[in-house]
Amino acid sequence: MVSSVLKQISFFKDLSNSDLKKLFSIAGLKQYAAGQMVFAKADLGNNFFIVKTGRIKIFTTVGGGKKKTFAYLKKGDFFGEMSLLGGKVRSASAQAAEDSEVLVISKKNFKRLIIENPDFSLNLLQTLVERLHKANKDMESMLFHNILGRLAEAILDLSKDKHTKPVKMAIDQNELAQYLGTTRVPVCRAINTLKRAGIIDYRRGELVILNQARLQSMAGSD
Amino acid sequence: MVSSVLKQISFFKDLSNSDLKKLFSIAGLKQYAAGQMVFAKADLGNNFFIVKTGRIKIFTTVGGGKKKTFAYLKKGDFFGEMSLLGGKVRSASAQAAEDSEVLVISKKNFKRLIIENPDFSLNLLQTLVERLHKANKDMESMLFHNILGRLAEAILDLSKDKHTKPVKMAIDQNELAQYLGTTRVPVCRAINTLKRAGIIDYRRGELVILNQARLQSMAGSD
Repeated sequence: MVSSVLKQISFFKDLSNSDLKKLFSIAGLKQYAAGQMVFAKADLGNNFFIVKTGRIKIFTTVGGGKKKTFAYLKKGDFFGEMSLLGGKVRSASAQAAEDSEVLVISKKNFKRLIIENPDFSLNLLQTLVERLHKANKDMESMLFHNILGRLAEAILDLSKDKHTKPVKMAIDQNELAQYLGTTRVPVCRAINTLKRAGIIDYRRGELVILNQARLQSMAGSD
Repeated sequence: MVSSVLKQISFFKDLSNSDLKKLFSIAGLKQYAAGQMVFAKADLGNNFFIVKTGRIKIFTTVGGGKKKTFAYLKKGDFFGEMSLLGGKVRSASAQAAEDSEVLVISKKNFKRLIIENPDFSLNLLQTLVERLHKANKDMESMLFHNILGRLAEAILDLSKDKHTKPVKMAIDQNELAQYLGTTRVPVCRAINTLKRAGIIDYRRGELVILNQARLQSMAGSD
């Protein structure tokens, strides 16, 4: 039963039942209400986390209160590994974007998992590589694309796991601005440009993708 | 003897002698002349590389010939892991920045090293976390700093392993511009501003840091 719960979480789908039992026996479960912080940038990091339900936002803040959202994590995604493997303090903040349940694993048990379980390491490595790839793409995008191209990329990114046709998602303009690391005004202007071109529709916090192909070509290939 | 050679390479310093022998027995050695490509973005990736001597530049190109340098790798640094662990094609290009020798490990042997050797995985994980941290800092810097702050950060970054006093390094303006992902003109202007303020000196491709503290405060803390 334990393993059937965990097998639903993608991160664990490659692990054997005995490994899953071991993992579950060393993990605690914690609940966070929407808006609650899991940890803040510069905190000392002592735990590794796996999202069980809900949605966790990973972001950074800099002087002047500006924010940049790095990712929204959902069921099966992990976070908090960076300060356990590198510098000791959190390099970004984590906050529940909606009511969430999170598995918590101590630093000591996290290191043991890596040493005793090659599949766990391989999963970690693959995810870190994905995140590094996304970070490099984001950088390229910041350097070489204008705000319209970056917005197109962000919309495609955020809608990746939506399967309605046409793709619909709830997102407010502030969230979009933070995802791009910019302010509301230029994002609002870019949204209106995409609306006028018939590429998206956007009203009352709901975004609908009307022309996926044009959005993709604006975001640039690969 | 084999192990004493490899022990000089930081990546291997935590590995046991028997692990080192195993590694050495499965690695080939390849030489690249300055300017020669090791691989290009979008190539199929089949090998993992460790720098033995010289310097390897990792960069990306986008339409219009614009370039962004992600890193200069030296003795003990590895590269090429991304397409072995994630997507199959290279996400960036690798080129010898000077005459270099590189250890080459096949994809199959690379996966075996991860599965059979937890220390190897831990080393990989720690380095990927460092790179992700740097990428996130670079993004923050692009979003929230002006060109002067970014140049200050790049200079500190590139001079990290120089131990002369004052710190000196050979770097041309094009390389600096590519490191920032921008063009020569704004970088040239920013260099002149730093020179006039007495923070650096720069002539004939040699950069000298005159006031490290001010450079650090311009680059922003953390």
